[in-house]
Amino acid sequence: MGVSLKFEGRDVISIKDFSREEIDYILKIGQAMESIAVKGSDMLRGRILATLFFEPSTRTRLSFEAAMHKLGGSAIGFAEAEIASVKKGENLADTVRVVENYADVIALRHPLEGAARLAAEFAKVPIINGGSGAEEHPTQALLDLYTIMKEKGEIDGLKIALIGDLRYGRTVHSLAYALSLYNIELYLVSPESLKMRREVLQTIKERISVTEKTDLEKIVPLVDVLYVTRIQKERFPDPAEYAKVKGSHKIDLETLSKAKEDLIILHPLPRVDEIAAEVDNTSHARYFQQVWNGIVVRMGLLALILGAVK
Amino acid sequence: MGVSLKFEGRDVISIKDFSREEIDYILKIGQAMESIAVKGSDMLRGRILATLFFEPSTRTRLSFEAAMHKLGGSAIGFAEAEIASVKKGENLADTVRVVENYADVIALRHPLEGAARLAAEFAKVPIINGGSGAEEHPTQALLDLYTIMKEKGEIDGLKIALIGDLRYGRTVHSLAYALSLYNIELYLVSPESLKMRREVLQTIKERISVTEKTDLEKIVPLVDVLYVTRIQKERFPDPAEYAKVKGSHKIDLETLSKAKEDLIILHPLPRVDEIAAEVDNTSHARYFQQVWNGIVVRMGLLALILGAVK
Amino acid sequence: MGVSLKFEGRDVISIKDFSREEIDYILKIGQAMESIAVKGSDMLRGRILATLFFEPSTRTRLSFEAAMHKLGGSAIGFAEAEIASVKKGENLADTVRVVENYADVIALRHPLEGAARLAAEFAKVPIINGGSGAEEHPTQALLDLYTIMKEKGEIDGLKIALIGDLRYGRTVHSLAYALSLYNIELYLVSPESLKMRREVLQTIKERISVTEKTDLEKIVPLVDVLYVTRIQKERFPDPAEYAKVKGSHKIDLETLSKAKEDLIILHPLPRVDEIAAEVDNTSHARYFQQVWNGIVVRMGLLALILGAVK
Repeated sequence: MGVSLKFEGRDVISIKDFSREEIDYILKIGQAMESIAVKGSDMLRGRILATLFFEPSTRTRLSFEAAMHKLGGSAIGFAEAEIASVKKGENLADTVRVVENYADVIALRHPLEGAARLAAEFAKVPIINGGSGAEEHPTQALLDLYTIMKEKGEIDGLKIALIGDLRYGRTVHSLAYALSLYNIELYLVSPESLKMRREVLQTIKERISVTEKTDLEKIVPLVDVLYVTRIQKERFPDPAEYAKVKGSHKIDLETLSKAKEDLIILHPLPRVDEIAAEVDNTSHARYFQQVWNGIVVRMGLLALILGAVK
Repeated sequence: MGVSLKFEGRDVISIKDFSREEIDYILKIGQAMESIAVKGSDMLRGRILATLFFEPSTRTRLSFEAAMHKLGGSAIGFAEAEIASVKKGENLADTVRVVENYADVIALRHPLEGAARLAAEFAKVPIINGGSGAEEHPTQALLDLYTIMKEKGEIDGLKIALIGDLRYGRTVHSLAYALSLYNIELYLVSPESLKMRREVLQTIKERISVTEKTDLEKIVPLVDVLYVTRIQKERFPDPAEYAKVKGSHKIDLETLSKAKEDLIILHPLPRVDEIAAEVDNTSHARYFQQVWNGIVVRMGLLALILGAVK
Repeated sequence: MGVSLKFEGRDVISIKDFSREEIDYILKIGQAMESIAVKGSDMLRGRILATLFFEPSTRTRLSFEAAMHKLGGSAIGFAEAEIASVKKGENLADTVRVVENYADVIALRHPLEGAARLAAEFAKVPIINGGSGAEEHPTQALLDLYTIMKEKGEIDGLKIALIGDLRYGRTVHSLAYALSLYNIELYLVSPESLKMRREVLQTIKERISVTEKTDLEKIVPLVDVLYVTRIQKERFPDPAEYAKVKGSHKIDLETLSKAKEDLIILHPLPRVDEIAAEVDNTSHARYFQQVWNGIVVRMGLLALILGAVK
């Protein structure tokens, strides 16, 4: 793609800022981190990660911190918006210009779209977007891709379905975009009111085959990867509507009866009941392995943007 | 007891899961940690402890974290139930199957009895129960035993009184059970409404001599160890009843006037006013030393179950 | 001053406990930390800092933690008053006598004046006051002095103005006192109702020239250093009074039009709108550099009181 592979000092705001070549390289470095994640390393000894989570997300925060510790670095930060300086009226630009003095890299989670981008404009140290608004969650997309690659050998040639809330879930927006860089067939399965946003759809349709469905049953037997997301009750004005949708998009043994033998099921977690517990022990389930993959991918990213790996 | 001493990979859920031989071995390893706790070590370098505290307990959490840091490891975690994934409806089994990817060992505190046991069933990494429900707090019992052994040379042959809330305090249930493995005389002193639970009493009475009293005065001169616990006002429907009890179970210089010279006083802390401040500087007080002992015992446990010590 | 320079094991409660000779030495050690802060160090490997923040202050807490990590040590602690043992009624003396077992040094932030002093009376390990009541914030004063020295070469001979809330801001009390140890001219600019406390004024007037003003305009052209503080709306019973004051003490390009070319502007942060964003990119602004200076000064202090530097 003509973009040279330079990662040191780089911000990770949107998956759209990365070429396929770059993404493939990140996944490759993630793979190299598998053994380091088990034995630990001193690669980032003396380096500090700040996790600024203006919106709680234990999972993402702990994943970043574990990745940093496994590379020998330290982590500082806060886990909720109710922090002192924000209460006192400080704006994000100031917070970032303060925290860049404490840390070598900042992982930021913020309820507002555009927050990570704004932070990156002010910060001298790299910003990693740990989720902002309903828009982007680039490290989740990277770990999703990594999981598919690790499980299937390669991403090209696969049939992949995204299921559930495709409208508000930030995960699926980043992932759909990332998948469109590969040679895949994409199926989008969601209730009418939670269909994939038009602007995302438009972009990815220019690149790959996309089929939109509201009915899960006919899609399951076709695909190699089922990516399931949580449908939040509060998105539905009418509880009856939610109840109907909820049932129709639940993955259980019956839903999977016609699935390909080597189908894998992913979920960004936490799940509520989109996937029945009985699925956990099938050969299809990969959602807990995804968590591990998140660590190695984040280790790879941290090592790359802090210049410990070229 | 015919149980071989294997600790690596083991869960620490209930003190009942350990034989006297095993407990003695843990105390011995704790002792070996005394000097390491002062100078620090790299024994667990690269290993990560996750502290999942669904119920706040600064003391226990910081003790585990300090123990891990003193062994060269790192700690991640959360300190309150109001975490994102739980708010989103995630169950404990899922949380554990996520966090086991981040950490080599999990210390769990949970308001529900049975929570630690459930977590251990799902987790691939060892779970240490940092307190669950009103039932069990095994590491507290271990540090209590360690304190008695350290101060008295051995536990066998001692007269030990447990005082205060013996009904709801999780500490005393674990401790009473553990003490019943030793050759001691046990005195239980509490208001009528806060007497030791029947099921605990039944078990320990099969093994050792137990005397139940509501009156503290006659017990103090007899015993070698006074283990005092906090009586919580909210346990009493009638405030007058609380006021009466509160006064009668308070340890002060007068209460101690007839005590043995080498009596030691323990308390799991925090205390409110069960022990008067004037007692702090007497030769009897050991409750702050217990805190240090908690670190070396937890260091020993972590080293054992992570296989750094055999 | 006849005081020998002994820092190991020492508490840092009030800037008044330090002679000018001692302060100068701390600043010198801070300077020596500049390069260590960039490359990291193992100077405090195996040592633990506890940050006990009974009042939230992300900035100060993260600064202490970053300083500790950069010296190779670890940090544990809590960030809010709502901690378990305090909820259960534990007093500060007990909390400190517990936490001293976990840590080699304690940084304490507390809403009550005198809290840090009380903690130091009970603790066996050094206490660093991270802000208590409206009274003292000694490490902030040290980093302020360090910033002035670093930027101006020396502090003696300068004209320095403190601006804003001089009554309730704990920062300016510590700083005014510290500055009075140097040969400077001090200007105090504040609304009538937020004038410097009488007792502070009395002490510093015995040593240096102090001019009190309510009008900023005539002071700006005279001084080498403008130290701006946040004026809190809630200090004013009458909103109209606040609005008037707020405008008159705001630093913007117009205010600075007659300033000396090498004027520097400091602020303890967070700022709200006392300093317009347009000032950030002028050659006068030093408030974000102050944050970095806070780390090196705290590194110096930690190394000194833990005996890693003599």
